[in-house]
Amino acid sequence: MNLSHIEHLGIAVKNLETAILYYENVLGLKCYSIEEVPSQKVKTAFFKIGDTKIELLEPTSEDSTIAKFIEKKGEGVHHIAFATNDLPGALKEAEEKGVQLIDKAPRPGAEGLEIAFLHPKSTQGVLTELCFDPNK
Amino acid sequence: MNLSHIEHLGIAVKNLETAILYYENVLGLKCYSIEEVPSQKVKTAFFKIGDTKIELLEPTSEDSTIAKFIEKKGEGVHHIAFATNDLPGALKEAEEKGVQLIDKAPRPGAEGLEIAFLHPKSTQGVLTELCFDPNK
Repeated sequence: MNLSHIEHLGIAVKNLETAILYYENVLGLKCYSIEEVPSQKVKTAFFKIGDTKIELLEPTSEDSTIAKFIEKKGEGVHHIAFATNDLPGALKEAEEKGVQLIDKAPRPGAEGLEIAFLHPKSTQGVLTELCFDPNK
Repeated sequence: MNLSHIEHLGIAVKNLETAILYYENVLGLKCYSIEEVPSQKVKTAFFKIGDTKIELLEPTSEDSTIAKFIEKKGEGVHHIAFATNDLPGALKEAEEKGVQLIDKAPRPGAEGLEIAFLHPKSTQGVLTELCFDPNK
């Protein structure tokens, strides 16, 4: 498949405010968007760095997948999202090569992107998202 | 501090060969370097994507920190490395702002970089590396 860059890193945090303070005041990045995503039971904060973004994810409910991730593994990097200009083609190729797909077809993601996840069982434990930006 | 981009992501894997096959054959990235680092008890493989690199890390000994990471958390993203043009200044600033440093001064890292780690206790669980490339 043809991946151009890392679109973003998803990082699970317990407290979004504390984490934003660290990313802004220590690392010097600027939070340009805070958004609650009720369907995913998370509150997110976005930062841009180089050609990549950092997406902080705070669970808003104990049964959020992010809450479960933190409970099991602690705070840390939750997923890597790669940018592609052909998401259906990338999914088809991954499936043909034996990768287990979480999403068999693109679905709407944050920031107007079309996204799909590959299963960490097929990706050495790294939950992997593929993204297509229809506005580019 | 002034961070320009994510220099690389360090990803802990159990088996480098299997992981390289996935990154090359499924994701379509190209491994440009394989290197054993005896001091860290790891074997590494590097891939370039956008302005970032992916560094796969396979432990070569059971007492490698990467082996311990995999035992505790499973395979996955082990650290994020940010690029800076002033590593001593970035470390000084981090320490002044209350961040616990693993390395108080820059030390040599892979690929000729000067590097230093911040402690995950101070960075919401994300082991964070700062890098300076003296050849740029």
